[in-house]
Amino acid sequence: MRIAIASDHAATDMKAEIAEWLMDEGHEVADLGPDAGESVDYPDYGYKLAEVIADGTVEYGIALCGSGVGISISVNRHPALRCALVSEPLSAALAREHNNANCIALGARLTGIEMAKSCVATFLSTEFADADDPAGRHQRRVAKLGVPPILPDHIETHQ
Amino acid sequence: MRIAIASDHAATDMKAEIAEWLMDEGHEVADLGPDAGESVDYPDYGYKLAEVIADGTVEYGIALCGSGVGISISVNRHPALRCALVSEPLSAALAREHNNANCIALGARLTGIEMAKSCVATFLSTEFADADDPAGRHQRRVAKLGVPPILPDHIETHQ
Repeated sequence: MRIAIASDHAATDMKAEIAEWLMDEGHEVADLGPDAGESVDYPDYGYKLAEVIADGTVEYGIALCGSGVGISISVNRHPALRCALVSEPLSAALAREHNNANCIALGARLTGIEMAKSCVATFLSTEFADADDPAGRHQRRVAKLGVPPILPDHIETHQ
Repeated sequence: MRIAIASDHAATDMKAEIAEWLMDEGHEVADLGPDAGESVDYPDYGYKLAEVIADGTVEYGIALCGSGVGISISVNRHPALRCALVSEPLSAALAREHNNANCIALGARLTGIEMAKSCVATFLSTEFADADDPAGRHQRRVAKLGVPPILPDHIETHQ
């Protein structure tokens, strides 16, 4: 699979370890930064990550920061992204099954490396459950995440 | 405090219990639905909740669904919202301290009611740590969450 990974300065060690492990497992991994030692702003990296998933460069994203909260919020600004902040594999599985999540967020200061890897492994191996849902409820809900009605006037763009 | 709470059908029991407890504690609580027994789509309730926080009707929001993933994604579509999906109080505290979160999300099928209440209590009693951050890093990062650069052409609005 093609996977991109991004973090802030609090999670560069976890980013490096997960990236190396996924490459050993045969995945193609794009590390979007930052390098260890830089102090950065998590939204910059969350937005970069969202873009390469939204434009199809990669299939899935992994978003890391100290708690996972900040970077997960920034990724979810993009209407094509569905980023699940998790700390155990059951949530990672449900995020794929019910929400067709295309990004997983983890908190490097709160979740240990082996638990983080278990979450990522579960996330990557679990399918969206639309086939088991003949009424199409999951797909209908996921579709609504793509067309948010809330675009306030004050919004500005950097592009 | 003025607080709004919303959920999907998987979390109406937790919604009712948290709402009653917060009112007993002296807060003003707006329950945005759904009623027990209805099957609903979580984005509809996440978007409703985001609006009443963004327009200042309430100060904070509580977003509930089965895992917390779906409703947290929908709330975070709004650039004025910062919704943290948590399962323990440390994440709830960090979301206030570092991210100035204005909404907390919980998974009613994964987190027990007493743990959920502890998360909410910690969330409501923790201040944004901008005063302890003379360099203004937290505020700078939070500000970037308000101006997402990613507004793809395919976006449509329901309004």
